[in-house]
Amino acid sequence: MEVSWETSVTDSINTIYLLFSAYLVFVMQLGFAMLCAGSVRAKNAMNIMLTNVVDAVVGSISYYLFGFAFAFGDSNPFIGTYYFALKDIPSSSYDYSYFLYQWAFAIAVAGITSGSIAERTQFSAYLIFSFFLTGFVYPIVAHWMWSSSGWLSPSATSPFLGSGAIDFAGSGVVHLVGGVAGLWGSLIEGPRVGRFDAFGKAVPMRGHNATLVVLGTFLLWFGWFGFNPGSFDKILVSYPTTSDQGNWTGVGRTAVTTTLAGSTAGIVTLFGRRLLVGHWDALDVCNGVIGGFVAITSGCSVVEPWAAIVCGFVAAWVLIGLNIVALRLQFDDPLEATQLHGGCGAWGLIFTGLFAKEDFVVQAYDSGASGVSRPYGLLMGGGWGLIASQVVEVVVIVGWVSATMGPLFYALYKLKILRISMDEEMAGMDISSHGGYAYTGHSDENHPRFYADYMQIRGQ
Amino acid sequence: MEVSWETSVTDSINTIYLLFSAYLVFVMQLGFAMLCAGSVRAKNAMNIMLTNVVDAVVGSISYYLFGFAFAFGDSNPFIGTYYFALKDIPSSSYDYSYFLYQWAFAIAVAGITSGSIAERTQFSAYLIFSFFLTGFVYPIVAHWMWSSSGWLSPSATSPFLGSGAIDFAGSGVVHLVGGVAGLWGSLIEGPRVGRFDAFGKAVPMRGHNATLVVLGTFLLWFGWFGFNPGSFDKILVSYPTTSDQGNWTGVGRTAVTTTLAGSTAGIVTLFGRRLLVGHWDALDVCNGVIGGFVAITSGCSVVEPWAAIVCGFVAAWVLIGLNIVALRLQFDDPLEATQLHGGCGAWGLIFTGLFAKEDFVVQAYDSGASGVSRPYGLLMGGGWGLIASQVVEVVVIVGWVSATMGPLFYALYKLKILRISMDEEMAGMDISSHGGYAYTGHSDENHPRFYADYMQIRGQ
Amino acid sequence: MEVSWETSVTDSINTIYLLFSAYLVFVMQLGFAMLCAGSVRAKNAMNIMLTNVVDAVVGSISYYLFGFAFAFGDSNPFIGTYYFALKDIPSSSYDYSYFLYQWAFAIAVAGITSGSIAERTQFSAYLIFSFFLTGFVYPIVAHWMWSSSGWLSPSATSPFLGSGAIDFAGSGVVHLVGGVAGLWGSLIEGPRVGRFDAFGKAVPMRGHNATLVVLGTFLLWFGWFGFNPGSFDKILVSYPTTSDQGNWTGVGRTAVTTTLAGSTAGIVTLFGRRLLVGHWDALDVCNGVIGGFVAITSGCSVVEPWAAIVCGFVAAWVLIGLNIVALRLQFDDPLEATQLHGGCGAWGLIFTGLFAKEDFVVQAYDSGASGVSRPYGLLMGGGWGLIASQVVEVVVIVGWVSATMGPLFYALYKLKILRISMDEEMAGMDISSHGGYAYTGHSDENHPRFYADYMQIRGQ
Repeated sequence: MEVSWETSVTDSINTIYLLFSAYLVFVMQLGFAMLCAGSVRAKNAMNIMLTNVVDAVVGSISYYLFGFAFAFGDSNPFIGTYYFALKDIPSSSYDYSYFLYQWAFAIAVAGITSGSIAERTQFSAYLIFSFFLTGFVYPIVAHWMWSSSGWLSPSATSPFLGSGAIDFAGSGVVHLVGGVAGLWGSLIEGPRVGRFDAFGKAVPMRGHNATLVVLGTFLLWFGWFGFNPGSFDKILVSYPTTSDQGNWTGVGRTAVTTTLAGSTAGIVTLFGRRLLVGHWDALDVCNGVIGGFVAITSGCSVVEPWAAIVCGFVAAWVLIGLNIVALRLQFDDPLEATQLHGGCGAWGLIFTGLFAKEDFVVQAYDSGASGVSRPYGLLMGGGWGLIASQVVEVVVIVGWVSATMGPLFYALYKLKILRISMDEEMAGMDISSHGGYAYTGHSDENHPRFYADYMQIRGQ
Repeated sequence: MEVSWETSVTDSINTIYLLFSAYLVFVMQLGFAMLCAGSVRAKNAMNIMLTNVVDAVVGSISYYLFGFAFAFGDSNPFIGTYYFALKDIPSSSYDYSYFLYQWAFAIAVAGITSGSIAERTQFSAYLIFSFFLTGFVYPIVAHWMWSSSGWLSPSATSPFLGSGAIDFAGSGVVHLVGGVAGLWGSLIEGPRVGRFDAFGKAVPMRGHNATLVVLGTFLLWFGWFGFNPGSFDKILVSYPTTSDQGNWTGVGRTAVTTTLAGSTAGIVTLFGRRLLVGHWDALDVCNGVIGGFVAITSGCSVVEPWAAIVCGFVAAWVLIGLNIVALRLQFDDPLEATQLHGGCGAWGLIFTGLFAKEDFVVQAYDSGASGVSRPYGLLMGGGWGLIASQVVEVVVIVGWVSATMGPLFYALYKLKILRISMDEEMAGMDISSHGGYAYTGHSDENHPRFYADYMQIRGQ
Repeated sequence: MEVSWETSVTDSINTIYLLFSAYLVFVMQLGFAMLCAGSVRAKNAMNIMLTNVVDAVVGSISYYLFGFAFAFGDSNPFIGTYYFALKDIPSSSYDYSYFLYQWAFAIAVAGITSGSIAERTQFSAYLIFSFFLTGFVYPIVAHWMWSSSGWLSPSATSPFLGSGAIDFAGSGVVHLVGGVAGLWGSLIEGPRVGRFDAFGKAVPMRGHNATLVVLGTFLLWFGWFGFNPGSFDKILVSYPTTSDQGNWTGVGRTAVTTTLAGSTAGIVTLFGRRLLVGHWDALDVCNGVIGGFVAITSGCSVVEPWAAIVCGFVAAWVLIGLNIVALRLQFDDPLEATQLHGGCGAWGLIFTGLFAKEDFVVQAYDSGASGVSRPYGLLMGGGWGLIASQVVEVVVIVGWVSATMGPLFYALYKLKILRISMDEEMAGMDISSHGGYAYTGHSDENHPRFYADYMQIRGQ
């Protein structure tokens, strides 16, 4: 046995690319933690940050033990059955770096849902839900769409409708899954105490720290450069019908489409909210940018830059519109995760069915092989195969997550372990469940009592 | 057509290098946001963070539509005219990754200037200025210095004075441009209310959060590793006159010179300010470090590590000195952006003209080709060609930015849309323009009566 | 002379890998700064952040001038004597990128110790200690373990006991060194005023900002992906006894073991502390995660993923146990650095002696050469050579650091320049040494009368 020079070079380059992309995706966990912390009231900041840390540490173990196996242990179209506890890894298909990249995705899902059920969920219920979502519900969806044996995967030998659904980095697999789970959690828990007054009118509940929201948003943006371009997995893949292009071109274009979609959605939200509420709202712009990223995540690698602008434009209005609907329906999702990750995620899947470009689809899914034909965007003249698959993905994700997470949240609710008591909610979760507030001010620490103690110690 | 193995490997390696460097440069936008937020008063934190987000999202669209074309659409020495909306990209010269890298630079410029005009600028005026600076003023300068057809570019076929100006990563193109724009904005707006008392004595206006300043400084340091070493664009370039060196050596050395210059400037500021003000000032050290980075940015790839220490040493005194002058002149730049990015940026250009080493210049600009001769640092025996070009760069940047941004700020001022009213300034921009403060404390989180108070202040 | 294509490709790939890993390790400095800031009281936040900035800037200069030479200027088994001020770099052994990577490690050490002596150390004493630790004490240890001429290095021609100690990324060299230094500093300074009451019972002294603790923890996690996998230095190294594996496999596995150890330690701490204190403690989970990372750092590259779980499990109990002991002994280390970096670091070295796998040891230290035999983990059947070497490393590090840092701290103490006065400690270091508090609230931002108040308290 010996390793050829070509193999060494190829594997080294692709591993660097995938590992550093994984590290960036991991930063999104920090981004979510900061975004969530800043968006809740100070009395619940410790709680929501703990949930984000727990998503990561619990997710590491569950994804190592069985989540990765369910998702990528190719065997049948519905669930994977190899690679439990990384047995037989590295294999000819997957090296450790691939596991790490997918792990970073897996832990993000529960983080999305944590926003929907923030400020009112018992921590033990959180542990159960997070374990179930990260270890089972999400990996199954990932298997369907991303594994080569998945029934709706574009990489399958004979893909669904000749196409399979294109969900390149997971508008559906990650964001819609997290959003639908959040929808059910949020619905079953009901709004936070005081969120709507006796007449059903919304009472503003501002997050406690806008700086953290901006910090989180920029960190998510940074991480998305790993999420979307990184989903090519390999960068050293040439396109045989070109003279000098390959995945290195594709990843660059994907970074550009991602940037343009998020930026457009941010601008539209800035001006749209200015018209609607009368001031320039920084927090809404942050959510708008994230909504644009969520939407482009499905089609980022297969659309032209100009189409990404269309994607972001519509995503902003989807988010603004759903937020208005949510208020009308007295639906309380503290982080707007249902509207943002659910709504923009669904739009992203449809968008891809409309605007995917043939060349780019073949490059992303067949390494640009010549003579290959696939359905592509309906508006680009690519027929109904792709858009139909995209709609099917939306439907099956909504169905699957509803059928699993809905009953789970309902059972926790019936067992009275889902929501904290009203007293605890008023006092805040940090003091009732986590041993103290996240912050201690100057005023507390120089409290007269301390100074008195100090004088006593000095015998004065 | 087919892609050769050598092309695939080379393009993959260089793309990884450039893209991940671009991601680091993007982090600087977050760094600026945190640095700025921490350096202003709490009542204006939301406003300045919004400006940083807006720089990014508006800059994405304007740089995509025409900024990149003005800068790199090579055609004549003064302005580029190709590649509008990324038409014809990827070309034989530029792939998407190059656009992304340059985009990350472009959005940084307005962020620098935002510090100079902080806490008193109308948001609509900010939108206009940011769009104009990022989309037009900056790209033109980038074209002159960095495009192969630029009149002062060292890459030109027949460079100015046989040399062209060496501004490797943009002490001039980025920092001096941002600083001079800030100078005019700051001058025309005048100091913040209460910054100087009736006797012209400065009243301290401490930023509200030193932790954010430190966070921002470290993030900028992290990002500068993309800014300076990344400016080689390609890492897989060998130096033919050596047996084992290439750009991989140059990028490492550039990271080292960057680190040493920033560190030296930080130490000098630490001890210098201790002597001047009597305590160890963390915030001044942060600014000192950044000043060192700004100064070394021009020559980072063409000087020896020991010279970087000289660079940082002088940069610290430039910053300390200009801050004293600014106080004397009652010039109020809340982030010291004029002094720091303008002053240290100009020093950096001169420094390069004094200390650039011949070998390194040929490596950075001619891939180390043998037999090539170029002017280099005056003190290294390289004659007057380079230092003269460097002085010319300082002069033309100061002239061009003054001639464009000065009139713009003046017109906004005359139209009375530049500065907010004194009432709004006292109340803070967050409550008057952005719908609420950035922070909600434990005590007041259930009492959203801010707007009512504000209306009272306004007598309504 | 000419550079071969193979050399260009290899050096480019390895340089990208090492430089970006170095950048990640640098982020750990920011992580420590945020973790430390959040863990101390608001009145000392500026002080501890300044120490972290100073570690970086002073460390840059001292490591450039002589630290790197002491560590890697191979010549005799005890101290290096080449490469002062980077003379003769790039050499055939080391390029600039290697220096930068090692620099990022060096500045981390003092950051660890800064936590132990937080909230009560004179800044001038800090400068002395930091300079001595980073520039001399640490590099010597690095030389012993990591230089090819080090007496306990596994890379030595004839390694100690046929094995040398395996401390891949520095559980001992970095963390135990920092922890033991912290132990002596903390012991000699004594507890903070008010930390233990008249009956010797601990009085809680909560840090002022849990969000910063979580931010710091995630940043450290992010940085550890550079610290551990990055310590391979080169990624383009194939294992000749395999058909498709090389360091690219090893680095991926190292990232996985790191993640699993930290996550396991986090989970165990979560549930362990729930049993012990009755609530879900976010801050303890953060420390648990870091403890797991510290422990796996020694053996990360040479153990199976399942063993990493064992490593993290024990690390959590080491940390929990040592914290209980510390309270009993009235030992006050504000950041638990002694327990965490010292205790878990020592456990990590022992763990490697028990669980290192033969194949992986040969891959990590002999590039997987066939026919090479080395002692490996005792429990894996590898005999006593490795575990004995590991114990020796623990002993010599504890001895060397105690013999150097103990007398230094004692001398500073005797000279009365180690600890601040009790008045200053009550007022807080920020106001007494650094010109003001880190934070300015809405209410007091226009009333800079802090120092006046402080002087009044002192009766002046």
